[in-house]
Amino acid sequence: MPEFCVVLVEPKYSGNIGSVARCMKNFGVYELYLVKPCEIDDSAYMMAMHAKDILDKSKIFPSLDEALDNVDLAVATSSVIEEHRKACLRKAYTLKEFVREIKNFDGKVGLVFGREDYGLYNDEIKKCDILVTIPTSTEYPSLNLSHAVGITLYELSSYKFDRRVKDRNIGTVEKSKAMEFFDQILDLIEYPTHKKEKAEITFRRALGRAKLTELEYHTLMGIMSKIIERLRIR
Amino acid sequence: MPEFCVVLVEPKYSGNIGSVARCMKNFGVYELYLVKPCEIDDSAYMMAMHAKDILDKSKIFPSLDEALDNVDLAVATSSVIEEHRKACLRKAYTLKEFVREIKNFDGKVGLVFGREDYGLYNDEIKKCDILVTIPTSTEYPSLNLSHAVGITLYELSSYKFDRRVKDRNIGTVEKSKAMEFFDQILDLIEYPTHKKEKAEITFRRALGRAKLTELEYHTLMGIMSKIIERLRIR
Repeated sequence: MPEFCVVLVEPKYSGNIGSVARCMKNFGVYELYLVKPCEIDDSAYMMAMHAKDILDKSKIFPSLDEALDNVDLAVATSSVIEEHRKACLRKAYTLKEFVREIKNFDGKVGLVFGREDYGLYNDEIKKCDILVTIPTSTEYPSLNLSHAVGITLYELSSYKFDRRVKDRNIGTVEKSKAMEFFDQILDLIEYPTHKKEKAEITFRRALGRAKLTELEYHTLMGIMSKIIERLRIR
Repeated sequence: MPEFCVVLVEPKYSGNIGSVARCMKNFGVYELYLVKPCEIDDSAYMMAMHAKDILDKSKIFPSLDEALDNVDLAVATSSVIEEHRKACLRKAYTLKEFVREIKNFDGKVGLVFGREDYGLYNDEIKKCDILVTIPTSTEYPSLNLSHAVGITLYELSSYKFDRRVKDRNIGTVEKSKAMEFFDQILDLIEYPTHKKEKAEITFRRALGRAKLTELEYHTLMGIMSKIIERLRIR
């Protein structure tokens, strides 16, 4: 399993560093490396909210080289990529491709993000092993720094944090039973015979698309049986 | 194809509305609905950067009901979900599940985000058709509002914006040719025979994992043939 750290190169706004720290804690990443950052003032702590510990433990480096000495794989990020076949330096993986590739990497992966205005320079990208880009609209491709970090960490960790207990979806037997109840209702309300087939198909298709869980199914069946019961009394 | 709009319910900080507008333009979403928002002041325009047009065209509604009258499918978002099997109101799709489900929906989809501090109330979630959650760390699950919007729009649009022209990866024939060159080099440097097999396997495996494109392959082959040429002269 890879272990991630975030490397910010020359961040200019203290508030952004705080926002990055918050995103990191949201997605369970704790190591923050800062290369020649601006002064970390109150606005960083304000934006960090409950992630002040990440700011306090962040490490400051005088150069990208020295920061990268501490990682096993350096991943540059950029919105400025080359899209043609012969691209080299700025030929990039999309974030989703990168996630697929990195899953089996064992070691520390440094995710390197550039300045708010100019991003990473070519010679900084050259120092990294991989270039990754977040696909955006051509009209306005430049993401805010902390949003780029947030989206990257979300994608890298989203498989990890799904803790829901899943309910089984209903199968053919249950759907047939629902169709039976539906037919009984059609009969009881004296629905026109020539329209019946269409109504049945419609209900069946809707059931198929709804992909009900067992629990939802039982709720709906309960309602239908109550309807049948009442219609029979009248 | 679904068409998306972003609905913010009672946003409290003007800067956040601006950050949301920027994210929207980054991912090609243009309609912003605001339900009882705070005053939209300079900080919103500052954070919006090149997405000021989205702020100017945003629509203000006095209630969520009135905003939702303008959408075909209302999607609530929350980090507070129920994880057990019998969950009902706060039983959620993960963002990735939702993306798979929504792809074939035709109509306008309203993505509803709650307040910075309290999110959406139960009666607001009840008004929506679907509940979606972004999986986060349990330690600090609450995302900043604009980061939640950014991650959601990234996931919903990332398939749309990949414009790269892809290069073919090399196949068996090319890999065999590379192995031949490698063997020639081993011979020319008089690499110990008993170590040769291991070296060949190592190179072959590395080649396999590197998944070279044709272009990268030709660059490497050019280098190897130059090495061979030079070693033969000596």
